Amino acid sequence: MLALGRAARAAARQVANSPSARRDAALTAMAEALRAQAPAILAANEADLADARAAGQAASFIDRLALDPARLEAIAAAVAEIAALPDPVGRVLAQWTRPNGLEFERVATPLGIVAVIFESRPNVTADAGALCLKSGNVAILRAGSDSFRTASAIAEAMQAGLADAGLPREAIQLVPTRDRDAVGAILAGLGGNVDVVVPRGGKSLVARVQADARVPVFAHLDGNCHVYVHAAADLAMARSILLNAKLRRTGVCGAAETLLVDQACAGTHLAPLVQSLLDAGCEVRGDAATVAVDPRVVAAGEADWATEFLDRIIAVKVVDGLDAAIAHIEAYGSHHTDAIVTADEAAAERFLAEVDSAIVVHNASTQFADGGEFGFGAEIGIATGRMHARGPVGVEQLCSFKYRVHGRGQVRP
Amino acid sequence: MLALGRAARAAARQVANSPSARRDAALTAMAEALRAQAPAILAANEADLADARAAGQAASFIDRLALDPARLEAIAAAVAEIAALPDPVGRVLAQWTRPNGLEFERVATPLGIVAVIFESRPNVTADAGALCLKSGNVAILRAGSDSFRTASAIAEAMQAGLADAGLPREAIQLVPTRDRDAVGAILAGLGGNVDVVVPRGGKSLVARVQADARVPVFAHLDGNCHVYVHAAADLAMARSILLNAKLRRTGVCGAAETLLVDQACAGTHLAPLVQSLLDAGCEVRGDAATVAVDPRVVAAGEADWATEFLDRIIAVKVVDGLDAAIAHIEAYGSHHTDAIVTADEAAAERFLAEVDSAIVVHNASTQFADGGEFGFGAEIGIATGRMHARGPVGVEQLCSFKYRVHGRGQVRP
Repeated sequence: MLALGRAARAAARQVANSPSARRDAALTAMAEALRAQAPAILAANEADLADARAAGQAASFIDRLALDPARLEAIAAAVAEIAALPDPVGRVLAQWTRPNGLEFERVATPLGIVAVIFESRPNVTADAGALCLKSGNVAILRAGSDSFRTASAIAEAMQAGLADAGLPREAIQLVPTRDRDAVGAILAGLGGNVDVVVPRGGKSLVARVQADARVPVFAHLDGNCHVYVHAAADLAMARSILLNAKLRRTGVCGAAETLLVDQACAGTHLAPLVQSLLDAGCEVRGDAATVAVDPRVVAAGEADWATEFLDRIIAVKVVDGLDAAIAHIEAYGSHHTDAIVTADEAAAERFLAEVDSAIVVHNASTQFADGGEFGFGAEIGIATGRMHARGPVGVEQLCSFKYRVHGRGQVRP
Repeated sequence: MLALGRAARAAARQVANSPSARRDAALTAMAEALRAQAPAILAANEADLADARAAGQAASFIDRLALDPARLEAIAAAVAEIAALPDPVGRVLAQWTRPNGLEFERVATPLGIVAVIFESRPNVTADAGALCLKSGNVAILRAGSDSFRTASAIAEAMQAGLADAGLPREAIQLVPTRDRDAVGAILAGLGGNVDVVVPRGGKSLVARVQADARVPVFAHLDGNCHVYVHAAADLAMARSILLNAKLRRTGVCGAAETLLVDQACAGTHLAPLVQSLLDAGCEVRGDAATVAVDPRVVAAGEADWATEFLDRIIAVKVVDGLDAAIAHIEAYGSHHTDAIVTADEAAAERFLAEVDSAIVVHNASTQFADGGEFGFGAEIGIATGRMHARGPVGVEQLCSFKYRVHGRGQVRP
């Protein structure tokens, strides 16, 4: 593993200094290689699937692991789309001149070495490798052991693309072992050869990475997202946003998990909102006021306010005004994505300012919490920390910066 | 210590949500309190100095610790200047609209809780506390035990300013004990109540913080800065920049420690540059080519290339072209500040692009590596990491960001 880290560092300088056109040529070649090597990739996936079935894995697990020609084509197309994004490296982030004539520029640079630890989704090998290369970084990829053969076959295609474009194959390395100690070695930083770790997978993986990593982590543990229906909310808009935020897809991190309804509009809004949820097949766990509106509502327990259900379940509470809503979100939320529905601009402004979440939303669904919806093209994940990256982590967030100072012989007095 | 961390977190939300005018009023009141409480602060400093003298501390240590009315006035004036800086919180860093009409803003927010661990300089209590408050953060300050009474008296004035403006005194807390275990508790994160640690002091302090911190660190361990005199360098400009970079102040982190002279101009430039250094009283440790130009040059050892002398000593080497210069800096440098002197724009462009340092300079002194010289107003330190902050850490770098999304009822298809 340490040799792998050193190889990554050696490749990092070459990739960081490579022109945009060469990185894009590699990405295009990768997409072609993924298509050309489809038979080998699908065969490797078949072998992984056979083992997973024999091990008695759940149907949902098998589905996440499974590739078919259409899914593989989607993976290749996503890599080609990343090639078409603008180059995030070298962007001039700020520029100014001092009275002594020195010209300053703050310019985006690669971060260095990004380690991605993931579970069984085959697309991550390609997505993460492509996003890292686009941003001038090198990638160390650790696949879940159940998808090891699939990930290896995909990584082989990615490395063929690198070689085609004259870039080092070590720019995208898959950890070549299923040995679990490899994860510990990555989290310890591979002797200074990991600049950031990105876990992609379930809560137990993310929790372990956040607890054990000695290097920076881009991740979120929970997406306990709120929709707050303020006193001045239009009922039809609130209903539309709520149903979308909760039920469009229940398994995504931007799905709403708690509905807060303001006391001031509960008389008109609470029952119709709760009934719409129930009618759509969503279990509602409510406080006393909510239980009172419909016999299908079950009583919420304290733990429900802090739970990311990722299912057709929602917690519902009546709150006494904006301050109580913000206090509830700060107490139970996960600083991911929280929304207010209101026609009152001042209330919206306070909510957006005071809720300390990566994404705060006024009059729209929390399910827009996604790099693609932000216009970032693709994301390697969503981060809830406050350091460096926050919210969707796209190619721009995979960059650091440096200062370039241009003089004409100036010395400091 | 854990109670101190919890108090900081409680104060953090209040400070983060406070209007700019209130934070500035507190800073102005702090400057006034530092002036009004000068007798108590100077008496506390006298007591610290008496102990330090009794303990046999070196004269340079005593000088760093000592306050007098003029130095204290400079500290108060620096706090007042920070009040006058533009508010870094709430700046709109980016703004765009998606085809579905959703409006996105990326807006600067405070980082949260900044812990500053420092040694004997009395100004740090005021500077660091003021920079944190200006950026909407709260500060936990750990002073060196030799300056404990001075730091306590200054912190008292800072807290009086906070109280005057109606902000919680816990927004700037001095660790109220000289117990060394307090540092370990801070580096462990005080139960999630430290968002970043900034060490201000000597190399052993920074090394300990970087090794032991379980939270992000803004710091640099070494400032092993280079001046590379390229083949196309004007000799007079090179001499002026070199003497300033090495000798203006030798104890600052932006001071040059190694001179690289290109083989192509060594015949004309090496001897005069080396002789200027020697004539100015600088010891020169050179490679074989450098030793040959003047009998006063001593032979450099391998360790000299990696040494931050912080003294009137410089290492000098002849390198064979731009690639060799970059390779030397990447091998021995500390990614802090490195300069090229050349009239060749293409060579300068390559140097600025390929040297992976926080600050890269063309035709100016490395001693401009300073937040004030960058126009940042003041800095809490200089960072050489690639995460979040890099280079001078001013009030803007003490900020995180969030995304604000403005809709009109949009839901995700």
